[in-house]
This record gives sequence, structure tokens and C-alpha cells, in this order.
Amino acid sequence: MMEKEEFEKFLHDKIPMTKAMEVRVEEYSPSKVRLAAKLEPNINDKGTAFGGSISSLMTLCGWSMAFRIMVEEDPEAQIVVQKSSINYIAPIRGDFAAECEIRDEESLEQFLCTYRERRKGRLKLGVRCYGGGTLSAEYEGQYVAYR
Amino acid sequence: MMEKEEFEKFLHDKIPMTKAMEVRVEEYSPSKVRLAAKLEPNINDKGTAFGGSISSLMTLCGWSMAFRIMVEEDPEAQIVVQKSSINYIAPIRGDFAAECEIRDEESLEQFLCTYRERRKGRLKLGVRCYGGGTLSAEYEGQYVAYR
Repeated sequence: MMEKEEFEKFLHDKIPMTKAMEVRVEEYSPSKVRLAAKLEPNINDKGTAFGGSISSLMTLCGWSMAFRIMVEEDPEAQIVVQKSSINYIAPIRGDFAAECEIRDEESLEQFLCTYRERRKGRLKLGVRCYGGGTLSAEYEGQYVAYR
Repeated sequence: MMEKEEFEKFLHDKIPMTKAMEVRVEEYSPSKVRLAAKLEPNINDKGTAFGGSISSLMTLCGWSMAFRIMVEEDPEAQIVVQKSSINYIAPIRGDFAAECEIRDEESLEQFLCTYRERRKGRLKLGVRCYGGGTLSAEYEGQYVAYR
């Protein structure tokens, strides 16, 4: 089982863009993942966070949550994002962080049950992005785990 | 009016993540924008394109199309992404490119008409992502131009 420091190293080693974005893993537990990023490498022409970096961090945050769940269930599972949607609420003028929290235990159990039966399952995850403590973007992603 | 080489330089200078992703502007016309990216800086743990990079490139591609439209209409307009959705269709195993094409002239005219009246308008844009000639992801984004 990787701790958050090891998971951060794994991301930086395997997904170079996470290093370029200076992604930090602040929480990596079975019920919550929080990923932070600095504004500077993710800035845009208006001096706020680049929309592409926000969507990238949120996509990664959901994927990391699914990864954290599956590492206990079946470490050999592959996890991919299938679809996603984002609402951008407010511009981000400083460092920012994406959070994915398991709030619906029942749908998680249903996902795991399906995965155990078919070696394939779909998991919907919500991610919130905060800039300076303010909710700045909301994301929903559907991830598929399979073998 | 920026040519595509100048627009690429503008992106690399103002949005450092586009340089890290090695984004190349292959087309930058009033009816089509095509942005390409190399696999290597955008690779993931599975050796395919990182979902975050795909979503980032598609978000940027729609924004660039809106920017190209507004630069003629009102160079002082601000353009931001308001919401977006993506369907990931197939993994990308090599270099890839995002394309945004104006197919619906009528809704573009409506957008410009609203913008002229209110100095604010919403524009929906579709973007397609191709990896090795195969359609790999579809995106729809809503952008807002305002002054």
C-alpha cells in the first residue's frame, strides 16, 4: 500500500504532466483524495488558473480516488476515465486544490459488487476545486475499472 | 492579427502549461483551430495519453477558437470557459491533436449579435480529439466572452 508521499512520487514518475503542474498529494485515504497545485506553473494570460490545468487536476483527482479504492480491491485493475463534466464557478487567483470524497457508500458498494462479479465496473465520482478556500469548480467523472 | 506562429508563441509565453505539453498550433483560422501535442510529455502510467492532458488540450482548443473569433470582433474581450463535458472514446497511443471547427454559422451569428448588443455572449463549441487519425474523445464547451 502506497502512502501519500509514495503516491505523489508515483504520479510524478509515471505522469510527467503532474510534475510540470507541481501537483502535491495532500490526502490519500480510502474515503478522500486531495491534490494541490501552485498557481505559477498553471497560470493563464489573465493571471488566473488555466482552465486546462483545473480540468486536468480534477480529472486526476477522481482517477486517484478510483485508484486508491482499487488498490485494496484488486491491485491489478486498470482504471480509465470514461466521461466527465465541469462547471467553472469562479476564477482562481492563487494556489488551488481538488478534493474527491466518497459520500455515497452505497454506490461504492454496488460498484465493488459489480467489479467482483464481472471484473469490470463503473464508478461515478464528484470532485470539487477550491481556490483560496472558495469553491471554484465542480466536476463529475465516470471511471471504469477493469482487468 | 496574430498568425498561427505568433499565437503559438502567445500561448507558450502566457500559459506555461501549453509549453510543458508541447502544444503546437497547426491551424488558426476564423473557422477552424487545430492544436497538436506530443505523447511523450503527456504520457500516463499505461503508456497512453494522460486524460488530464486530453481534457486540457480540448479546453484550450475551444478557448482558442473563441479567442480567434473575438480578436476580429472585439480584441478587448475576455474569454473564459464556463462549462464543458467530454466523452473519452479510445486510448491514445501516440501524438494527438484537438480540432474545433465552426459548423453552425447561425449560432455563431447569434452569439456575435448578442455580444454586440450586451458586450457579453455565450458560445457553445465542439472539439474532437484524434490520436493516430482515430477519433479518441469528443468535447463540448460553453465559453463566455465579455468586456
